[in-house]
Amino acid sequence: MLSIEDYQQHFVAYLKEYATTKEPENLYRPIGYILNLGGKRLRPVLTLMAAEIFNGDYKEALNAALSIEVFHNFSLVHDDIMDGAPLRRGQKTVHEKWDVNTGILSGDAMLIMAYQLFENYEPNTFLELAKLFSKTALQVCEGQQYDMDFETRNDVSVPGYLKMIGYKTAVLIGAALQMGAIVAKASDEDQQAIYEFGRNLGIAFQLQDDYLDAFGDPKTFGKQVGGDIIENKKTYLYLKALEFSNENEREELMALFSETPKDTNVKIEVAKKAFVSSGSAEVTKKAIDEYTQKAFKTLEILNVSEEKKELLKRFGLSLMNRTV
Amino acid sequence: MLSIEDYQQHFVAYLKEYATTKEPENLYRPIGYILNLGGKRLRPVLTLMAAEIFNGDYKEALNAALSIEVFHNFSLVHDDIMDGAPLRRGQKTVHEKWDVNTGILSGDAMLIMAYQLFENYEPNTFLELAKLFSKTALQVCEGQQYDMDFETRNDVSVPGYLKMIGYKTAVLIGAALQMGAIVAKASDEDQQAIYEFGRNLGIAFQLQDDYLDAFGDPKTFGKQVGGDIIENKKTYLYLKALEFSNENEREELMALFSETPKDTNVKIEVAKKAFVSSGSAEVTKKAIDEYTQKAFKTLEILNVSEEKKELLKRFGLSLMNRTV
Repeated sequence: MLSIEDYQQHFVAYLKEYATTKEPENLYRPIGYILNLGGKRLRPVLTLMAAEIFNGDYKEALNAALSIEVFHNFSLVHDDIMDGAPLRRGQKTVHEKWDVNTGILSGDAMLIMAYQLFENYEPNTFLELAKLFSKTALQVCEGQQYDMDFETRNDVSVPGYLKMIGYKTAVLIGAALQMGAIVAKASDEDQQAIYEFGRNLGIAFQLQDDYLDAFGDPKTFGKQVGGDIIENKKTYLYLKALEFSNENEREELMALFSETPKDTNVKIEVAKKAFVSSGSAEVTKKAIDEYTQKAFKTLEILNVSEEKKELLKRFGLSLMNRTV
Repeated sequence: MLSIEDYQQHFVAYLKEYATTKEPENLYRPIGYILNLGGKRLRPVLTLMAAEIFNGDYKEALNAALSIEVFHNFSLVHDDIMDGAPLRRGQKTVHEKWDVNTGILSGDAMLIMAYQLFENYEPNTFLELAKLFSKTALQVCEGQQYDMDFETRNDVSVPGYLKMIGYKTAVLIGAALQMGAIVAKASDEDQQAIYEFGRNLGIAFQLQDDYLDAFGDPKTFGKQVGGDIIENKKTYLYLKALEFSNENEREELMALFSETPKDTNVKIEVAKKAFVSSGSAEVTKKAIDEYTQKAFKTLEILNVSEEKKELLKRFGLSLMNRTV
């Protein structure tokens, strides 16, 4: 097995070769642009790692890894349109640099291109990869829909929220790992276990993102601390705070999360106090830990060496400490 | 073999069962809406017909036919956003009835669902269908991009235009037929021939659409006669008229196709006169006939009975006479 940095390098080299501009330029240049914006390449690295965990060759998993990355970037392009986001990784989003039509059509092409990458595998592997891909991609769309629905709903439940982040974020982490396992022809049991490892880790990761949005260190968090609070996002922290509050506190918190004041600092401070005093902050930390442990638990049934399990665990921990 | 009306009925019954609303409703209800807007179901009927032409059972081709129809409707939803179209088959377009975000996300889900329908076939057939589908779907995107590019370009060539309509319209007709052939396990030769039959017929059909836009009977054409002229569309008629004009006439025609006057009737009459006097109208009619004959020519090499060839020919002719 190689190091994570090595997998990253091999993947990026493969990606560079792939993302060259074809005709019509106005369709393919935005695709090259978004694919080359950088990022940690977390998902494709997971695919390569998983292939080698199950005694495959990472080289054979490169096309599956690329498919995952192309799909992930497709979803970024379309989500950025839907969210009206001007920036992505500090650069202009596709619909800002070009226009909305370009973003829609280039995104569509990327979704198709993601499927085409599976054509490099023999029919049975192709079928397995494409089936997992379709199931996952549709869940990601459903997750995005739930996320948009939640913006205008006042009856979001904690299970509903967990389902949303599970679909929008976590299933793709699980699928990235399972695709590596499929390419390496791992057993169905192993495939399921590595998928669940990724999915649970993905939920832990997203819950941690919610937590750090309020309580993270501005120096290391990477995003604006308090961003979710400013945008009135119904995160786990918020929903649990509502659940643990009495009627008065609940009304105050709901009122706080329905306004957009000029001075956001006060709003952030009031929200954070409510998250702590209600016990929500503590419970969120506990949930993060529980999903992380659940992920590690599924590693136990994998039919691979202890060293490899240790590697996955270390990767998971480094992910949760945000050093990857 | 059944009649076209029978295939239509069987298909619509199958579609009705498929297009039921799931959760999240805001994602799936627009999908049910657009799929149930009606239409002639031309493409899926071609898939069912082709399966039986090659001695398959149309029932086995229903999922492939549905995939083609779901894809076609996906492209309508996204194209309608890009074109800012308020109406589709006399009803509100998805982005008008809901909003642009709903149109984008529901369209994305439909593209994925189209692939999922191939999961009903065994691995080799799945691979063949998905490969043809991806190739075709990407060409449809490229065709849409060329179409949008042409709006602002003044150097559109006739071959460029033919490539555009080939990708945007004709390849999907070819693919619909080939998918029926794939399901019926026709030979590669037969698959290629039926694909080319459909593709050439599709080009003939689109050229006829261009012609009828100017010279069609308002009672039977179905769309607003002169619509392309009003919108300054660089159709085959227009490009050939430019080619056959002298410098003065060319400048006049280009000037005419760069303005949006209040009285469109005069503009339409002037354009039609130029199409006729330049010889473009005649040449366009000839091109329609040539592509139709080219389509019929490819039928000759098919390894099927003369009656079946006759059936495809009759279908082609009825399509060109717009009775289907």
